[in-house]
Amino acid sequence: MTLYLIPVPIAENALHTIPPYAVEIARGLDCFIVERAKTARHFIKSLGLVKPLQEMTFVEIDEKDNSEAEETFREAVKAGRDVGLLSEAGCPGVADPGAGIVSMAQLAGVKVVPLVGPSSLLLALMASGMNGQRFAFNGYLSPKRPELARDLRRLESLSQQHDQTQMFIETPYRSQMVLEVALEQLQADTVFGVAQDITGAEEWIRSIPIREWKKATPRQLEKAPAVFLVYRRSSGKLI
Amino acid sequence: MTLYLIPVPIAENALHTIPPYAVEIARGLDCFIVERAKTARHFIKSLGLVKPLQEMTFVEIDEKDNSEAEETFREAVKAGRDVGLLSEAGCPGVADPGAGIVSMAQLAGVKVVPLVGPSSLLLALMASGMNGQRFAFNGYLSPKRPELARDLRRLESLSQQHDQTQMFIETPYRSQMVLEVALEQLQADTVFGVAQDITGAEEWIRSIPIREWKKATPRQLEKAPAVFLVYRRSSGKLI
Repeated sequence: MTLYLIPVPIAENALHTIPPYAVEIARGLDCFIVERAKTARHFIKSLGLVKPLQEMTFVEIDEKDNSEAEETFREAVKAGRDVGLLSEAGCPGVADPGAGIVSMAQLAGVKVVPLVGPSSLLLALMASGMNGQRFAFNGYLSPKRPELARDLRRLESLSQQHDQTQMFIETPYRSQMVLEVALEQLQADTVFGVAQDITGAEEWIRSIPIREWKKATPRQLEKAPAVFLVYRRSSGKLI
Repeated sequence: MTLYLIPVPIAENALHTIPPYAVEIARGLDCFIVERAKTARHFIKSLGLVKPLQEMTFVEIDEKDNSEAEETFREAVKAGRDVGLLSEAGCPGVADPGAGIVSMAQLAGVKVVPLVGPSSLLLALMASGMNGQRFAFNGYLSPKRPELARDLRRLESLSQQHDQTQMFIETPYRSQMVLEVALEQLQADTVFGVAQDITGAEEWIRSIPIREWKKATPRQLEKAPAVFLVYRRSSGKLI
């Protein structure tokens, strides 16, 4: 019995970013633990069905009380039935739910097979030109301006102290505020990155020092999820 | 003009982990900046050649003096010629060379397009069941036992303090020592993960508390590159 970690496209019309071997494995499964059943059914259906959707199991992860998903997983282990784990977009368990089920599988000695697919964090880091030998992902920062300003300065200082790229994500409607506060708060030679709609038709990735952001034509960010990156070299040298 | 970040398989016979759209883009290019020319030529050839290899440019990244790669990149920008950036295995710029060229491209306003492919760090994190909402990659730890012991205890403490999965990598011939020192030094309820030959025929990923490692049949790690992960919950709760 195997737990497969199934990637899901992160942009619209981007099924081409899922390698065919991962699609084939997902098509062969009939038991899924998912972030949201409705969209997971839609995704699995889009791969081309091997058996009717009604004969498949889709159980949602519930981060407060995950007993239903856990029970489904335990039953599958007993029955020797392979399980697929998937989130709404990207890779399950990374900036997305799913780690609890993976942890159960690991403890139970179940084989866990992660499949290759798109991760907005990884792709943003690759395209940033920042330090990829040392980096940290911090989830979401504070939602309000004064606390966000403090968080951004803290990440800048951590980056310099540990020579570490600092990453975070933000919800669509706050992306523009994050950019504004970063331009206000960060030092001129700190590199700041924004990545939106990665792998999509409107992919937009810019990663330049704050000084260059200020010289560039101001941009209103799309109301879309964004990955942000902050990097300040230890030496204080310009990148 | 576009700089494409081209993924390379991380295991033997794993070309299936590169999505066909990425293969198609790579096949259309004739100018490459690479970690090692010999293996890069071999990889590009394996994709099926559109034009003779001799008519293509392969320039190596040199982290001490990168002037040749930089000059090649500048010439390509002037000529409006697309460039592919690739490392020996995995994703360029993440735990691998390449970030310097990406940074040049970003500063020059050149479009940077990261292509989806395998990353041992991301896949190991997915399969670990550890915290994927907060994590850090630390590159290599100290090569000698006493310093390695100290580094591991420091990562354990950082993990608990920041509720952050701590990742690092090690060269093939030191993997076994890392496992031994971790079992000696880390606390019983700290989760420790090892991932080897990800996406390969001998894929092996185990991520369980130190206590469980000690109960399990001792394993001699392969002399192969490994990703290691350490996670200790802030609350001290067992995972």
